[in-house]
Amino acid sequence: MHEQQGEIETHDAKKSSPAGGTSVQVLAPATVANLVCGFDVLGMCLNEPNDLMEIKLLDEKKIVIISADGYPLPLDPAQNTAGAPLVEMINELPGNIGFEVTIHKKIKPGSGIGSSAASAAGAVVGANYLLGDFFSKQDLVRFAMFGEKVASGVKHADNIAPCIYGGITLIRSIHPLDIVPIPAPELFVTIVHPQIEVRTSDARQILRKEVLLKDAIRQWGNIAGLVAGFIQNDLSLIGRSLEDVIIEPVRSILIPGFDEVKLKCKAAGALGGGISGSGPSIFMLSKDEQTATAVESVMKEIYNKIGLAYHTYVTTINQTGVKIINN
Amino acid sequence: MHEQQGEIETHDAKKSSPAGGTSVQVLAPATVANLVCGFDVLGMCLNEPNDLMEIKLLDEKKIVIISADGYPLPLDPAQNTAGAPLVEMINELPGNIGFEVTIHKKIKPGSGIGSSAASAAGAVVGANYLLGDFFSKQDLVRFAMFGEKVASGVKHADNIAPCIYGGITLIRSIHPLDIVPIPAPELFVTIVHPQIEVRTSDARQILRKEVLLKDAIRQWGNIAGLVAGFIQNDLSLIGRSLEDVIIEPVRSILIPGFDEVKLKCKAAGALGGGISGSGPSIFMLSKDEQTATAVESVMKEIYNKIGLAYHTYVTTINQTGVKIINN
Repeated sequence: MHEQQGEIETHDAKKSSPAGGTSVQVLAPATVANLVCGFDVLGMCLNEPNDLMEIKLLDEKKIVIISADGYPLPLDPAQNTAGAPLVEMINELPGNIGFEVTIHKKIKPGSGIGSSAASAAGAVVGANYLLGDFFSKQDLVRFAMFGEKVASGVKHADNIAPCIYGGITLIRSIHPLDIVPIPAPELFVTIVHPQIEVRTSDARQILRKEVLLKDAIRQWGNIAGLVAGFIQNDLSLIGRSLEDVIIEPVRSILIPGFDEVKLKCKAAGALGGGISGSGPSIFMLSKDEQTATAVESVMKEIYNKIGLAYHTYVTTINQTGVKIINN
Repeated sequence: MHEQQGEIETHDAKKSSPAGGTSVQVLAPATVANLVCGFDVLGMCLNEPNDLMEIKLLDEKKIVIISADGYPLPLDPAQNTAGAPLVEMINELPGNIGFEVTIHKKIKPGSGIGSSAASAAGAVVGANYLLGDFFSKQDLVRFAMFGEKVASGVKHADNIAPCIYGGITLIRSIHPLDIVPIPAPELFVTIVHPQIEVRTSDARQILRKEVLLKDAIRQWGNIAGLVAGFIQNDLSLIGRSLEDVIIEPVRSILIPGFDEVKLKCKAAGALGGGISGSGPSIFMLSKDEQTATAVESVMKEIYNKIGLAYHTYVTTINQTGVKIINN
């Protein structure tokens, strides 16, 4: 009796899918967390790079993870950043529903541009599409945060939220979860990923548990300015507010060339920028593509000189988040 | 030669006065600093109460302070909150220019609604009017901060800036001074001033010099939400963001009835509120006059019960700051 009721509800969930399909492909974008002065609360979605993921509906209560390109992802769902969120999701669904997820991992784990968040967000957005948008976006963030816990030990949402909502998001509060979309101006983003490893958990551990009140005051003046700048499209205010007196002075030590990159990119016209997430990637905001490309050249020159392998991206703010590309 | 040049420049400054007069009356409004989660950086200007001030141009390099209503103000300009800013101002003017300031002190010193800032801001705005707007608003804030130093030992601008600019202001940075006007929605403000003394300098001393990083993160999430709420006229977001996990838990101990006022005013419909500046006044924001008046009744009831004398005000956000009323 109980099982039958479960099956009926399951059927309803599937039936209401806008596509009616049983599999879907999604593009799950990279994100920049923190945005310099918004440690743990601000994040921004990028148009490049993206993970490509296929999600298939199963009629068994299980999660199957497949690495499409041989990338050594953990295949135990509970240990996989795409799997753990789906385990949480199916536990809130009646009956026998499961998902198979095939991941083409394009965003390198450990790069600091939200690789784990992309897998987690892509999985739940794709799965929810197959369920006919059974869950709200806020539910999806709640599920996807279990992927971040797998990746870094902490259920943070500053990559997850922009990846699901698009644009720039503020996590005003985690308990209770309060996500505030912040209107974002049309800006260009240049990213450099120097190929060194900075583990999010290490980058957290080097932070002090206490900060000076006077530094905290400076930081909340800056985040208030940054949010006002974003909403009002005030590029000068955005530039002045991109200052971090608490996290950056500690974490930037882990990133070779950081100070030089920041200084010379601003000299090349960038509004400002800093560490993306917990690093090692560095992002810079620019008002136009020409400046963003000049900034990229500066980054390349510096890491060529240092002799460190790197990737660069010139992209824009992704206003919509995870994208359904076919089914 | 040098003196003559000074006189010529002085004359130019006077000549360009829009009024051409030599005296002016101003209304210098009360202000609410901090706005709960914006300690030291946010402030809001009120339409009531106001100090009434008369400023007269003198042809001698001196400042004269007159207390119109017998209120025991320090009459040494360097020790007076209206005098010290004018001393700074005339030191940046050539030649023999001075001011006589008559103060009708309506905003009680020590009330926590910017009494010292009103005197300082009123004096410099009035004086600058007589000089034909010789100085910029930012200059006026810089001068007026010397009044705050006299009053509390610290050159803070979170009352001064809204008093001069009107509306809601963000002090993104003190060094260098960066004042960001924040568009403010049409809200009603209820204030209760319980008649106990809380000195700003005492209220500062009880604060810890260090704060937990996790509390600072919660605070900067809230200030970002509050600023987004103000700009976007999102009353629910404003209400959710009016939370202070750092200053209020410490300072509210100095204010009898604080927790009850906050709880019951919100139950009566207030969006939220908290300590005004360093207290003892408490402010509450409401979406309409009816709610603001209901909130006032709650405040009265509580302080009647406690048996503490008090004043209340129901007012609105003053969008223009210090007002020139005649000359």
